[in-house]
Amino acid sequence: MNRVSVLSVAFAVSVVWIFMREDHVHSDEGMWLFNNPPRELLKKKYNFDLTDAWLEHLQKASVRFNDGGSGSFVSPNGLTLTNHHVGAESLQKLSPKGKDYYRDGFLATSFEEELKCPDVELNVLQSIEEVTARVNSAVKPEMLPSQAAAARRAVMAEIERESLEKTKLRSDVVTLYQGGLYHLYRYKKYTDVRLVMAPEHGIAFFGGDTDNFEYPRFDLDVCFFRVYENGKPAHSEHYLKWSSEGPIEGDVVFVSGHPGSTNRMETVAKLQHRRDTTLPYALNLMRAREALLIQFSERGPEQAKMARSDLYRVANARKALTGQYQGLLDPAIMARKLEEENGLINKISADPAKKDAYGSAWQRIADAQKTLAQFEHEYALIEQGHAFDGHLFRIARHLVRLAEEKAKPSAQRLREYRDSNLESLEFELFSPAPIHAELERVKLAGALSFLAQNLGGEHPLVVKIFAGQSPAARAASLVDRTKLADPAERRKLAAGGKEAIDQSDDSMIRLARLIDADARALRKQFENEVEEVERQAYAQIARARFDLYGTSQPPDATFTLRLAFGVVRGYQVDGVDLPYTTTFGGAFERAERQQYREPFGLPKRWLDSKDKLDLAAPLNFVTTADTIGGNSGSPVVNRAGEFVGINFDRNRHGLVRNFVYTDEQARHIAVHSRGILYALQTLYHADRLVQELLGKQ
Amino acid sequence: MNRVSVLSVAFAVSVVWIFMREDHVHSDEGMWLFNNPPRELLKKKYNFDLTDAWLEHLQKASVRFNDGGSGSFVSPNGLTLTNHHVGAESLQKLSPKGKDYYRDGFLATSFEEELKCPDVELNVLQSIEEVTARVNSAVKPEMLPSQAAAARRAVMAEIERESLEKTKLRSDVVTLYQGGLYHLYRYKKYTDVRLVMAPEHGIAFFGGDTDNFEYPRFDLDVCFFRVYENGKPAHSEHYLKWSSEGPIEGDVVFVSGHPGSTNRMETVAKLQHRRDTTLPYALNLMRAREALLIQFSERGPEQAKMARSDLYRVANARKALTGQYQGLLDPAIMARKLEEENGLINKISADPAKKDAYGSAWQRIADAQKTLAQFEHEYALIEQGHAFDGHLFRIARHLVRLAEEKAKPSAQRLREYRDSNLESLEFELFSPAPIHAELERVKLAGALSFLAQNLGGEHPLVVKIFAGQSPAARAASLVDRTKLADPAERRKLAAGGKEAIDQSDDSMIRLARLIDADARALRKQFENEVEEVERQAYAQIARARFDLYGTSQPPDATFTLRLAFGVVRGYQVDGVDLPYTTTFGGAFERAERQQYREPFGLPKRWLDSKDKLDLAAPLNFVTTADTIGGNSGSPVVNRAGEFVGINFDRNRHGLVRNFVYTDEQARHIAVHSRGILYALQTLYHADRLVQELLGKQ
Repeated sequence: MNRVSVLSVAFAVSVVWIFMREDHVHSDEGMWLFNNPPRELLKKKYNFDLTDAWLEHLQKASVRFNDGGSGSFVSPNGLTLTNHHVGAESLQKLSPKGKDYYRDGFLATSFEEELKCPDVELNVLQSIEEVTARVNSAVKPEMLPSQAAAARRAVMAEIERESLEKTKLRSDVVTLYQGGLYHLYRYKKYTDVRLVMAPEHGIAFFGGDTDNFEYPRFDLDVCFFRVYENGKPAHSEHYLKWSSEGPIEGDVVFVSGHPGSTNRMETVAKLQHRRDTTLPYALNLMRAREALLIQFSERGPEQAKMARSDLYRVANARKALTGQYQGLLDPAIMARKLEEENGLINKISADPAKKDAYGSAWQRIADAQKTLAQFEHEYALIEQGHAFDGHLFRIARHLVRLAEEKAKPSAQRLREYRDSNLESLEFELFSPAPIHAELERVKLAGALSFLAQNLGGEHPLVVKIFAGQSPAARAASLVDRTKLADPAERRKLAAGGKEAIDQSDDSMIRLARLIDADARALRKQFENEVEEVERQAYAQIARARFDLYGTSQPPDATFTLRLAFGVVRGYQVDGVDLPYTTTFGGAFERAERQQYREPFGLPKRWLDSKDKLDLAAPLNFVTTADTIGGNSGSPVVNRAGEFVGINFDRNRHGLVRNFVYTDEQARHIAVHSRGILYALQTLYHADRLVQELLGKQ
Repeated sequence: MNRVSVLSVAFAVSVVWIFMREDHVHSDEGMWLFNNPPRELLKKKYNFDLTDAWLEHLQKASVRFNDGGSGSFVSPNGLTLTNHHVGAESLQKLSPKGKDYYRDGFLATSFEEELKCPDVELNVLQSIEEVTARVNSAVKPEMLPSQAAAARRAVMAEIERESLEKTKLRSDVVTLYQGGLYHLYRYKKYTDVRLVMAPEHGIAFFGGDTDNFEYPRFDLDVCFFRVYENGKPAHSEHYLKWSSEGPIEGDVVFVSGHPGSTNRMETVAKLQHRRDTTLPYALNLMRAREALLIQFSERGPEQAKMARSDLYRVANARKALTGQYQGLLDPAIMARKLEEENGLINKISADPAKKDAYGSAWQRIADAQKTLAQFEHEYALIEQGHAFDGHLFRIARHLVRLAEEKAKPSAQRLREYRDSNLESLEFELFSPAPIHAELERVKLAGALSFLAQNLGGEHPLVVKIFAGQSPAARAASLVDRTKLADPAERRKLAAGGKEAIDQSDDSMIRLARLIDADARALRKQFENEVEEVERQAYAQIARARFDLYGTSQPPDATFTLRLAFGVVRGYQVDGVDLPYTTTFGGAFERAERQQYREPFGLPKRWLDSKDKLDLAAPLNFVTTADTIGGNSGSPVVNRAGEFVGINFDRNRHGLVRNFVYTDEQARHIAVHSRGILYALQTLYHADRLVQELLGKQ
């Protein structure tokens, strides 16, 4: 699945990637800025004229799911298409007792039947404004790293506050090229999002973890929502027209979505740190969580239902991280990275002025890794919260910090509490979605054990957090003695401000208070001693590259809207040709070979209708376009800007794309627009939806 | 499952446990030596007269499965009963293409139909001889630790060689009380072991990983073998008579088996080291292996079959280790350990002579942990082979070392290559059991990744072992270019001696050669700087305890025959009474509640026969007797020495028994003799077997 993984966000230190290879114009690499698209490249390589109108239309038809996915408008009435796995949590939360929309699917046959999600926020990018000069002018050369970081945070918050006040649009200053550029992104925000249609989990995620990141693939990974305004379906002026035929081999296509993070221009020292410190820790964390969730799921059907969205997310992250790790363990990839780095350093060293301006960057980054290694696990466990896995602690942490941060001017707050972000944060914080105490207890106990596993049982933080109890006993007493599962209680505490928080004897609030000073200290250390040092050093490297190779290259991914392009094309594995598309019939063949064991048991609807289906109808297809986690749900469009598919995954050869782009075998995988339409018509009898997609409504 | 786990053996440093609490005579704690049984205690507590004849009979009816389990003779014709999970590997290896005895069960209706296992060795203890004085006399006070260790190894090997020559019996000098005593154990060995009967996996391991280490439980975890001599069923003079009625609540029972290892008398520093270094590493290893094997199993039914015995073993170890870890994370357990330790140290400190003789032990052990921490992971990865998981490397390692070690006098060899052990080792080494290249590749690639995950990608050993390739590529080339899957090739290399090994260009032999010097250096460091230091220090502590508390206490477990005793008794959890026994009907109820999902889908035979069954018939029961991994398959006998059940597991409260014995909730779990008989009669129609068990054949 191509959703932003929890960890890739948690560990992302977004950095610049500028092509170094001479042949870069021949590759389809790149997650391009909408305000700096690859016009010449597209003209030259594919004879495609990228017009402003084409681009604006695609931009405003593209949607960001604020919790980690992408999507698009596919009708003028706010109809929004994303992946089933992006909609999964909502499907789960919307299922009343006795129903299971996640497993069994859902279809609204009228507006009235569309179900309002408790906490989905969608963003649609309206404009991008260059603010680099203003941000840079706030940071003076003589400042210490800690002062520089504070000044930059302050000016960014101020720009966002002004913009919000003026436009009422969600306003985020985005750091591009790791500080080379700062752009202000303004989004229209939708918070009334309703479920329209979802197929069964058994076909949306056919093949499950086994086939995740694999191809050939047979997934109807789609989910339809609709955005509402003032209680009525919103008018979405910009939407993608549906291509009933979809793509064929050799077609040029575009992917418009929100890739989460890439690390392609990291220095070798940083990559070695990831390989030897960050990823081993992250893999241990994911495997520990996965083992725990599998255990929990086996308690019974109810527990399996509670845990499954966590479980899929964790399994997906484990697989993605494993792929990344394997990439970094490959001496050939590291050798290529080292060669590129040495090439750049040699060029710089040959020119005294350049050497003076940029030469110190690599050592500074290497030194920062040594600093980071000393407290990275503590930082991840205590500040990023890996030691306190679960909804209840996250809520408590926000309440405790909100009370403290709100008392400060916006510019001085921890960044997630800046004025311009508060509405989104509170929307999430006060979500009425149910919280399962049994699962929370188990997750928290596991996380506390993981804390001790990493820091040791005598570590002062462990002793303090355990408070003389075993992890299981401590977790049980924390979960059983908090009222934060109730949104009303959260609102009450939030409204009471610092006094209410200070006086609360809620167990989870007490835990969040207990470790807040430690957590903030770790964050400060990270921001000042690592993040700021890296930011300045990477900015040096970025300028060096601008100097040497020019400025027309896209920055690393930052979970903001990007345009990728590529060609619909199959590939070879071990001498076997894999075609560009799979078919409905292929799904039945794969199920048959796997003896219909889970996760290969097709939905009853599919099994019953097999004889009536056109088994040659296309289901999934692959292209060379450059995607990463966060692109889940991204529309794939053709030259005419029509919807021809929806991205949902990479193949395993694409898992190293965090670090290097290749297109020999690496592909992203999408659901075919003809396949979606065919399934809606033939299997789901979703006539209303089909009419709307075809513009006949 | 109560089999010896790979890791508990790998990490075991067997140590002494002497009771410290004043009330120890009131507890059922203890895995007692057969040559020093708790006669007075049994007389006093249960008014039971333990006679020499009773004890000898039980000893010679008890069987050790050399690869990690226990069992017993249950007829005069060599019929041997153990757990299904102890027989699992044989069931797997014996299944011809198209058959699956592991999944579907097996029943031989005549001697001719009994199937010979490729590599099962059974040991039956014949005698125990005290050799402490001779061992100790070889070690002089002025020796350095390395000299002391070598001298002790030499004299032990010499004693074993003499005994083997004289008696032709397998002869092992066993270190008890971590060096307080040395006993020579002589075993009759059976290597012609044939499969007689196994039920379906679905009832043998009903509830799977979910119910493993849980109670109430509903497992028919049995498997019948028969030992042969000279091609005919062996005459087993000592065998256990079957109790058709089995035990009821309050009965005193005895468990005779081979507990693998316990660590009850370790110092607090050692336990902290386990908690903070050894167990976190081991948990990460188990979770990594488990994730890998689950992935592999999902490739398809064939792969699932290949991987399942590995998967069950790993999942079992993961669960057992998690339980141990949770025990050590419990501040209450650590506080109790610390209190006991301080009590002993205070008593010693009060007496200058004792202080002088024993007082330094604790610091020496603590220091040894600091030394160990510096290379423990390297030792585990390189010498214990965690970096090279799979049959092929294990074979290569043995071939390379055999060639070198055989050239030395037995007394100077690495201990596993001493003359008295060679026959067993070669029996395993030349096993014709199939080796699956696909699984070997995946396991080896995973293990190489785990190596890098722990040591870092730049570690000289990692660089050397990877040889410029990624883990997957390196593993594939290693597995694809070795011929060691063929037993004839192994025999040829073994017969060729050092010259053949030195000249071999077999990929796996080359790998084993490549790292042998490193591995041996790590082993030497472990044996000299940790093991020997600990051995001497623990021997001091043992003598201190003898001084203070007397000598009539059992040593820690060492995978040698022990006698435990206890009472058949239910217990309470969260105020709910759990009865001492479960029933056939209970299995159906549990399956129903779990909607017959795997691992709760009962075998068809059971489902079809439900209406004909006496659902009140007993299936499993629990007792307070003291068991640990390795006791799997141990017979449970009544006062009359009759077979009343077969141990197969502990409950989760018993998982801390590595460190402390409790009997408030901790229980071992056994299959009821009446339940076994009833199932054989009613469900399996195993008439020949039933007649034999009832002595009517």
